[in-house]
Amino acid sequence: MHVVIVGAGFGGLACAKALGLRPLRVTVVDRVNYHLFVPLLYQVATAALSPSDIAEPIRRILRRYENVEVRLGEVTGVDWQAKRVLLGEGPALDYDRLVIATGSVYNYFGHDEWARYAPGLRNLENARAVRAQVLRALEEAEAGADADRRRALMTTIVVGGGPTGVETAGAVAELTRHALARDFRRIDPQEARVVLVEAGPRLLPAFPPHLGAYAEARLAKLGVEVLLDRAVEHVGPDGVTVSGERIGASAVIWGAGIRAAPAAEWLGLSGDRLGRIAVTPDLSVPERPGVYVIGDMALLAGADGAPLPALAQVAKQQGIYLGTALAREVARGEAPAPFRFHNRGNTAIIGRSAAVFDFGRYQLTGRLAWLLWAFVHVYLLVGFQKRVLVSIQWLWRYLTYERGARLIMDPVPAMPPPAPSRGSRARGPAPASGRRSRR
Amino acid sequence: MHVVIVGAGFGGLACAKALGLRPLRVTVVDRVNYHLFVPLLYQVATAALSPSDIAEPIRRILRRYENVEVRLGEVTGVDWQAKRVLLGEGPALDYDRLVIATGSVYNYFGHDEWARYAPGLRNLENARAVRAQVLRALEEAEAGADADRRRALMTTIVVGGGPTGVETAGAVAELTRHALARDFRRIDPQEARVVLVEAGPRLLPAFPPHLGAYAEARLAKLGVEVLLDRAVEHVGPDGVTVSGERIGASAVIWGAGIRAAPAAEWLGLSGDRLGRIAVTPDLSVPERPGVYVIGDMALLAGADGAPLPALAQVAKQQGIYLGTALAREVARGEAPAPFRFHNRGNTAIIGRSAAVFDFGRYQLTGRLAWLLWAFVHVYLLVGFQKRVLVSIQWLWRYLTYERGARLIMDPVPAMPPPAPSRGSRARGPAPASGRRSRR
Repeated sequence: MHVVIVGAGFGGLACAKALGLRPLRVTVVDRVNYHLFVPLLYQVATAALSPSDIAEPIRRILRRYENVEVRLGEVTGVDWQAKRVLLGEGPALDYDRLVIATGSVYNYFGHDEWARYAPGLRNLENARAVRAQVLRALEEAEAGADADRRRALMTTIVVGGGPTGVETAGAVAELTRHALARDFRRIDPQEARVVLVEAGPRLLPAFPPHLGAYAEARLAKLGVEVLLDRAVEHVGPDGVTVSGERIGASAVIWGAGIRAAPAAEWLGLSGDRLGRIAVTPDLSVPERPGVYVIGDMALLAGADGAPLPALAQVAKQQGIYLGTALAREVARGEAPAPFRFHNRGNTAIIGRSAAVFDFGRYQLTGRLAWLLWAFVHVYLLVGFQKRVLVSIQWLWRYLTYERGARLIMDPVPAMPPPAPSRGSRARGPAPASGRRSRR
Repeated sequence: MHVVIVGAGFGGLACAKALGLRPLRVTVVDRVNYHLFVPLLYQVATAALSPSDIAEPIRRILRRYENVEVRLGEVTGVDWQAKRVLLGEGPALDYDRLVIATGSVYNYFGHDEWARYAPGLRNLENARAVRAQVLRALEEAEAGADADRRRALMTTIVVGGGPTGVETAGAVAELTRHALARDFRRIDPQEARVVLVEAGPRLLPAFPPHLGAYAEARLAKLGVEVLLDRAVEHVGPDGVTVSGERIGASAVIWGAGIRAAPAAEWLGLSGDRLGRIAVTPDLSVPERPGVYVIGDMALLAGADGAPLPALAQVAKQQGIYLGTALAREVARGEAPAPFRFHNRGNTAIIGRSAAVFDFGRYQLTGRLAWLLWAFVHVYLLVGFQKRVLVSIQWLWRYLTYERGARLIMDPVPAMPPPAPSRGSRARGPAPASGRRSRR
């Protein structure tokens, strides 16, 4: 039996591991060669961690499972009648069972053109672009700009009051208002503005109200301006319009709402309002024999009747469940018991010594929650080396307030441009800090 | 007095530090916001280290010197009569003393069009591009290709038998032939070819002959094919032609010859054959009062009458000398003693437990040289945190043969593309490994 898993996020990887070393063939397809620990992506965007700290090669993760192959490729469609996954390049993959774990993208609620100016933090490229944008704006402000322009250059807007928005706003404020304070001579980092815009009446709507209030108070302490009950009406290259008010900004970061990746179309299904595919409690798609959907893509009611949320822990549990079920099916022909989600607690970090934890029956805030957050996240990272490296950087940052990864790296063409020819017009200096041939 | 330093490489930074906290104003201009430790760039290209491990924000390095300002900007020219440095964006900088420390670029010997296919390792973008190219070729080979194509995909060519070429070839061989060995199912990493092409009769021409022979033997042990006395006649998208023989390759890395950045033109000077500017022993340019040149850009004879080599240690010593001299001039009006270079030894690493050191009177090879190389390079890194992080990664790599930074990251447009709209045609999956909104 050949199982094809599309997507090596939390769900896809968990499924592949559960199928590892079992008597069946598994192929994991992803369009990048690494598994990304998305919950920490905002730390890359705010120069606290490097891309490689939160990204692990898929091949290495699955190395020891000899029945698992990895294929780097872009899925362009599914021929579900012939049971084949179509890839943009290279031969199609025949499958007996197909697991769709392609996750979600941010939801611009019909304004996809805003994505250009307000990237969401969903991949490393986004994170690097945001980091460069924020840092470059401060450089421009330092180089000299009139008061209005400087005010805009020093403003960052975060859209969405969920955990991603709260964490990003807190981290940006720590970066621009605190960590860089001594590095500039002309601008005052204390003038840096961070505005968090939420359409609803409070922050962290998925958490109990007092945790939202706590987050709001802690963000205010960090200097973040929280705007509640305010809708984003327009996003452009120079900033946003929020409930009629224009706010100039150098960077806008989108963290509001998600919707499933467009895989429903591959299967000729319509999906729900958010593009999710309805699955039965064994995670299969009734209309498409042999097809399973897990993670953000899957529409399945939890114990309370509401759809399970788009959380990594849901995806991971579904991946483990499905992998185990498929392996059992092969071994013993058993039908699995229905999937049940076990809530491991929900968390968000606001900043130094401030985080919230919601375990359902009890909640935690403050320094203890923050420490727990750090331990949990280090523990969840893939690989011992990453755990050590991230721990050291966090400890270092805690002690010094420094940010280690403050690189403005321009995106470059796939091939470097030709070197300047000697006879050409005067150009800028050669890579000025990249210029020593030898030590 | 206002000193403007163009370039924050080893020379420019050393000069700025020597001028730090002195009674004069200093501005350091660079077109990137970080100082790059170029000697370890090949480790980024071969997935051993991350960009942020070898790049430190210039502002942080110079933070404590309150008389030093940093300006991110691209120098477009110098009005040496009016004593102004022209920047592409933003107001020009008036100077009393100008220090040009813009370094060098690779020399394609009249074939600048080759740069497109054979990047040199001079900046982080180059290194990231090479890393992605090598890793992606292996992925393509694994996905299935005919024998000829697979052979080309698994071949990397390094041009130049100097230290950069030797180190890069060794590191590529360790990566493709050893570190990744267990990660692929269909291709045999032992089939990976690494070809090092040198136009001269031996490797490491700047070192004593027995060290070149040692390097050759150690590279052969790693599986590198060394081609001596062979000239590169053509470089194209599919490989190179070397002395009439075509070698197909997925990646070509250029490490042959350097030439000074085109700053001579700014000053209306012609420069020597390599674009260097002749300076007097106080590092000033006789024809241009108030202008100094240090590092790879400077043409100055050493004790043996030959021009000083393009080495970081030369640039650093010149920077310290010039900064001290300028500070003294301000304080006491003294003319400085001529600059003298003190050779601290020259080194190259070939691979695990293999390096060479040349201290002039005695030489060192093998494991001891390799350990010394590692200590020296960790010590030379800027910042305590980087030293710790790099040490851990090297130790880890030594123990496990793993490479921590194996990310294929595509260059992206400055702004992310709009998200796919729900009604559009079927597209690839959303960032498949970047898809969890929350843990």
